[in-house]
Amino acid sequence: MIYVFLANGFEEVEALAPVDMLRRAKQEVTTVGVTGKIVTGSHHIPVTADITAEELQIGGDMDMIVLPGGMPGTLNEEASPVVQAVIDYCVANDRWIGAICAAPSILGHKGVLNGKTATCYTGFEKELTGAEIGSDGVIRDGKIITARGAGVAVDFGLELVGAVCGRETQQQIRGSILCD
Amino acid sequence: MIYVFLANGFEEVEALAPVDMLRRAKQEVTTVGVTGKIVTGSHHIPVTADITAEELQIGGDMDMIVLPGGMPGTLNEEASPVVQAVIDYCVANDRWIGAICAAPSILGHKGVLNGKTATCYTGFEKELTGAEIGSDGVIRDGKIITARGAGVAVDFGLELVGAVCGRETQQQIRGSILCD
Repeated sequence: MIYVFLANGFEEVEALAPVDMLRRAKQEVTTVGVTGKIVTGSHHIPVTADITAEELQIGGDMDMIVLPGGMPGTLNEEASPVVQAVIDYCVANDRWIGAICAAPSILGHKGVLNGKTATCYTGFEKELTGAEIGSDGVIRDGKIITARGAGVAVDFGLELVGAVCGRETQQQIRGSILCD
Repeated sequence: MIYVFLANGFEEVEALAPVDMLRRAKQEVTTVGVTGKIVTGSHHIPVTADITAEELQIGGDMDMIVLPGGMPGTLNEEASPVVQAVIDYCVANDRWIGAICAAPSILGHKGVLNGKTATCYTGFEKELTGAEIGSDGVIRDGKIITARGAGVAVDFGLELVGAVCGRETQQQIRGSILCD
């Protein structure tokens, strides 16, 4: 199961393009409302999460977590003990972690990016403690995938597809949405 | 005011990237729930619309309408008397119309694309009655902007921004989301 965390002030495209791409690839995705069941994005779009953070069971079915950016969504995610605990779980159990825009800062603050190459929204580089800042819009290093911002949200979603399903499926989904 | 129509089965990224981009550009955007107040996209994401179709006043504040694709969202949009009426209003009053993926077919069926260059999702070309099919992912011809699919949803949103705010604002928003 892939869990995508939605907190009030989340960047809508950064959160929903990954859900969209992963569900196109037939992956099981659960959106988790960190600040309640209905979560309102930074551009005032209210989305109903599949479950709330209180309902989340942290454990063996957790293949990947996705942390969207946006403000104050990123701060609300970081303040959540559930989000902190799932990051700890994923690191300890070698599960995929995706983070885009401001959200890689959450990983930086936890020391998870030490020795990794990563990217983030311009101005957040200093928050990526221990990371080397890469130049690509989306970067995969080990089990951590980071991306720069909303402009590459679809590419970020496609990279998450590639991580869990392989490059062939990634290319199929890319073809199906007529990227080029 | 810009009205974005959401019907059950709408393609989430195609609908919400335009809302996101237009609101970044400080445009007033209202989402209209064609099939109720909470509308569920083709990838099972429930979004709360700002108003329902029954609450929509068709009239002078209507600067632009946006029709997302997705299935069966496109069919649900086309079946709506409100959507049909707003298209008629926009054509009669020279207002902007944006449509992406399968949704340009709604315009084709109404004869609105006669003599226009337009694009759509692969396989829907024959539904664009009277149009010349262009090769670009996003095409503006007069007051009609069409786009190919979810892979260009952000570009479609940026083109809508350019239409109502001008190229300079379009480039500013493009820069702010770190497209390149």
